Amino acid sequence: MANEQAPYVNMILLQWELQNKRSEKLFAQISDEQFLLEVSSGKNTGRYLLGHLASVNDLLFNMLELGEPMHPELEKPFVTTSDKSGQDMPSVAELRQYWSDITAKLTSLFRAMEPTDWFKKHSLVNAEDFAKEPHRNKLNVLLTRIIHQGYHLGQIALLVKK
Amino acid sequence: MANEQAPYVNMILLQWELQNKRSEKLFAQISDEQFLLEVSSGKNTGRYLLGHLASVNDLLFNMLELGEPMHPELEKPFVTTSDKSGQDMPSVAELRQYWSDITAKLTSLFRAMEPTDWFKKHSLVNAEDFAKEPHRNKLNVLLTRIIHQGYHLGQIALLVKK
Repeated sequence: MANEQAPYVNMILLQWELQNKRSEKLFAQISDEQFLLEVSSGKNTGRYLLGHLASVNDLLFNMLELGEPMHPELEKPFVTTSDKSGQDMPSVAELRQYWSDITAKLTSLFRAMEPTDWFKKHSLVNAEDFAKEPHRNKLNVLLTRIIHQGYHLGQIALLVKK
Repeated sequence: MANEQAPYVNMILLQWELQNKRSEKLFAQISDEQFLLEVSSGKNTGRYLLGHLASVNDLLFNMLELGEPMHPELEKPFVTTSDKSGQDMPSVAELRQYWSDITAKLTSLFRAMEPTDWFKKHSLVNAEDFAKEPHRNKLNVLLTRIIHQGYHLGQIALLVKK
């Protein structure tokens, strides 16, 4: 990354990596059984949120034009439908592994991208809208995903020592 | 904002503003009484988290060299000490107002800053460390605060319809 945009991209990639390290530490503090509990009475289970985070990351491959999703089967139970809607779900152990695989592959692809690539439009915005709203670039997608991930990590953290 | 760094700054300021709008909507869905409840059994109350968010934002005035905090009295009960430590706390109605006042003033000051100001070191990093780690700038502080705020908003959201 050797151009003038590199520092801005690097700042956000460092946050992505930092948050993933924190996620790993957090997940390691929660047992498979604890993940099955609701984060608060009547709310989503930890398992649903773990699958949701894995799937939302998985959707980034397409959105950032980095290839095909690794686990497209997660979208239906963890994004399209809500928790407790009776969908089949992988086990917590499987979801841990999926989250980890997806996140590691994304990080590796992110680090291989040219800084200028991050300022191009993402796959869900059309050229006309992008001309009017140039902040709707790939870097902004990653930024929103980091914030979204933080939102649910705060919820998952409630399962610690419960 | 008319230089080459403006788009990067604007992208993050837009996220700040978007998240504040979402926070306002969320807080409006939660009654004062609901804010007194724990977000999950045995965890922090909504009131503590609201005061925590207000105070962490208030600390940005000093950290980003934008002036003095508006409510320095919040730091002790909401940042230095944990919930239920017996500290006197303002009412939920007061905390709503403090959060709103602090956030509005910050936003106004942020929009008046020059884009280049954001890439200068923040007040808690020394010049030597900053030379080695140039990403420890004011914009990065704001980015970490947006993520931190999202983390606790995810928890406060658990109080809706409870």
